[in-house]
Amino acid sequence: MTTITSVDVVDVRFPTSLSADGSDAMNKDADYSAAYVVLRTDEPGLAGHGFTFTIGRGNDICVLAAQHRAAPLVGRSVEQIVGDLGGIYRELKTDSQLRWLGPEKGVEHLAMAAVMNAVWDLAARRAGKPLWRLLAEMSPEELVDVADLKYLSDVLTRDEAVGMLEEMAPTRAARIAELESSGYPCYTTSAGWLGYSDEKLRRLCQEAVDAGYKHIKLKVGGDLEDDIRRLGIAREVIGWDANLMIDANQVWDVPEAIEWVGRLAEFKPLWIEEPTSPDDVLGHAAIREAVAPIGVATGEHGMNRVLFKQMFQAGAIDFCQLDSARLASINEILAVYLMAKKFGVPVCPHAGGVGLCELVQHLSVFDYVAVSGSLEGRVTEFVDHLHEHFVDPCIVEDGAYRLPDQPGYSAEMHEASIAEYAYPNGSYWASVAVPA
Amino acid sequence: MTTITSVDVVDVRFPTSLSADGSDAMNKDADYSAAYVVLRTDEPGLAGHGFTFTIGRGNDICVLAAQHRAAPLVGRSVEQIVGDLGGIYRELKTDSQLRWLGPEKGVEHLAMAAVMNAVWDLAARRAGKPLWRLLAEMSPEELVDVADLKYLSDVLTRDEAVGMLEEMAPTRAARIAELESSGYPCYTTSAGWLGYSDEKLRRLCQEAVDAGYKHIKLKVGGDLEDDIRRLGIAREVIGWDANLMIDANQVWDVPEAIEWVGRLAEFKPLWIEEPTSPDDVLGHAAIREAVAPIGVATGEHGMNRVLFKQMFQAGAIDFCQLDSARLASINEILAVYLMAKKFGVPVCPHAGGVGLCELVQHLSVFDYVAVSGSLEGRVTEFVDHLHEHFVDPCIVEDGAYRLPDQPGYSAEMHEASIAEYAYPNGSYWASVAVPA
Repeated sequence: MTTITSVDVVDVRFPTSLSADGSDAMNKDADYSAAYVVLRTDEPGLAGHGFTFTIGRGNDICVLAAQHRAAPLVGRSVEQIVGDLGGIYRELKTDSQLRWLGPEKGVEHLAMAAVMNAVWDLAARRAGKPLWRLLAEMSPEELVDVADLKYLSDVLTRDEAVGMLEEMAPTRAARIAELESSGYPCYTTSAGWLGYSDEKLRRLCQEAVDAGYKHIKLKVGGDLEDDIRRLGIAREVIGWDANLMIDANQVWDVPEAIEWVGRLAEFKPLWIEEPTSPDDVLGHAAIREAVAPIGVATGEHGMNRVLFKQMFQAGAIDFCQLDSARLASINEILAVYLMAKKFGVPVCPHAGGVGLCELVQHLSVFDYVAVSGSLEGRVTEFVDHLHEHFVDPCIVEDGAYRLPDQPGYSAEMHEASIAEYAYPNGSYWASVAVPA
Repeated sequence: MTTITSVDVVDVRFPTSLSADGSDAMNKDADYSAAYVVLRTDEPGLAGHGFTFTIGRGNDICVLAAQHRAAPLVGRSVEQIVGDLGGIYRELKTDSQLRWLGPEKGVEHLAMAAVMNAVWDLAARRAGKPLWRLLAEMSPEELVDVADLKYLSDVLTRDEAVGMLEEMAPTRAARIAELESSGYPCYTTSAGWLGYSDEKLRRLCQEAVDAGYKHIKLKVGGDLEDDIRRLGIAREVIGWDANLMIDANQVWDVPEAIEWVGRLAEFKPLWIEEPTSPDDVLGHAAIREAVAPIGVATGEHGMNRVLFKQMFQAGAIDFCQLDSARLASINEILAVYLMAKKFGVPVCPHAGGVGLCELVQHLSVFDYVAVSGSLEGRVTEFVDHLHEHFVDPCIVEDGAYRLPDQPGYSAEMHEASIAEYAYPNGSYWASVAVPA
């Protein structure tokens, strides 16, 4: 028997605010950070790695929450945990005292994501498979057993979920072969951060086109005249056949979103992302109706499956951008993919930050192979930052993610990176003045 | 000039799980707790006290979050802060790095509630008035200046808000006089916790009737046959003229809620409270349509004003049970009261826990005096637990809250209570075995 012997949770922060990487209308000085969980075992070489993503201050709060949430795992049998990945999820999530602090949202849910991401990484490593393949080899019943369908039965029953997965099962192998050849399509956000100069924007757009991207995303919502000028530059460089997406990062009220997006319609954006509060289902529905044919996208702050259920029910979004470190790992993400399939909404996961690209490549591949069976309208975010800190970094070629082939969820960071960027005592932070 | 010299945040926990007080279908072993904030100043005798309420484990996470959130207050001028209570709220809430952890939900929002509750307590103490009176003496413009209307302009403009308050302003004094004579009506939840025996239920229902209550609430949702038997006992004791409310604490999916409540309809409950996920606006709307004329109530886990906006827009609730320690204090609560007024939904605040009754009495009085001007359909929760720990405890007589008359928000705890129940080093916890 293999046992989980301890849980380490580390506060890791990268000083990205120094370069304006990641700057947008809401988040001007992000220090991309991770509350990083390692489940250690008594089997040499076997550990589970997972994390949630934050943008700096408060990462320590997520660390503390993850320590609480993971505590019941210590001393448990690895075989038992990976043999019932739905059971351990439900056990951790139903701690009634911790539940009060959400439920299923905010810091507690970020911590749950970090811990369960580590559990799924452990399961895939133990199976000797990349996570997408572990999932793609599970039967429809096994997948539905691990999915969290609580509060969803008004739109999705267990039988419906099994039925949808069964329909795709016979053709899984062909889709795996297809993706092994072509990769999974992605788009880049690296060009369009709000803090970049026009010259840098122009150069990065050209580099993106040269690298084979057919989708490019720009941040908007700071100043209307700036947005008009920057979108003009982008269209000049990428032309009108490529897709241009815009992202307001929640800065507008509903009427303001409708007005502002209307002023940018001449640039024919594919979608407006996060036009308003991420909690506002009915607001997104109103915006979608007003700005069509421009699509509405949201989800990186989509707090849980109940929010996505309503986004689908209300016809509020054209693109679902679930987040791999905000939803409670595979158990909840699977439920959102199943609902998206039923409602016919493409899932284009949020990525970037620290390590989110490493995670979402597994999700997108699994979705195509086992759930949606479609690439139409689907393109996964890619941001070219901080991959050097990961042991098994994602690889993007010709605007597509190559399929990961190492065991696990690609979540492990280099020990040297942790030693340098652990906060506040890593070698980088010890060398600069950290405010008390 | 008076200065905030330091912020203390204390983890206070009461071992209420020992007596099954507070037990319901979701929360079986609550230890009522507070992340308790004290803003100390250099004026002798002047401090601001506030808290958020939790049910045990994880209270330390809220303490850490409150420490972060309150840090910018240290060294500030009290005059400046109380002179611009909207400004300090916006400054604290827009920390973009902390915002990522919500936004405006979960642990971070509970912490914001604790800190801003202390700020409002400080403002009222400095003015020498109970908080309800401080608010009731502010002009419509002043009130709207402190209210957080962000993300609400699709349902409520600033001008509409001022207009609604102006309409009630000339008659405020008469309503104050009325409440000073009669008190504000309340109901009791003390009778119906799920862990109580039938005999205790019967006795407590009789005591509630004898004490003048016209509304009694029971917990349901554990076992249908138990619920039918317990509601039968309650109706036997209180008769059919008194109001009986039922509370499921989020245990059901939507179809299950409709089915179960249908089976309890013979007992003619006034409302079903928290039938499903607190995030499910469309689910509550569906339940409301199906169970009418039984009303739907929710809000103690209503995470922020954007959720309440949608509850009102969707016609999802008959009673709004906002929580004084989950919403971000007066700034956000005021916005919810204004929307409730516009949509004609009575606000019946959630209370109980630790100190929530002390807070909500101020809110209900202010609502009647300055916002709604109506008592119709309004009754505020009262639970007779833990008031002995407060310096200015609420007083309930004949089923009504007497108006508080001490300066502040009635949020201050006795130092002896803190010394005993601070976790894990207070004298009570030091005397029992606390798990590591």
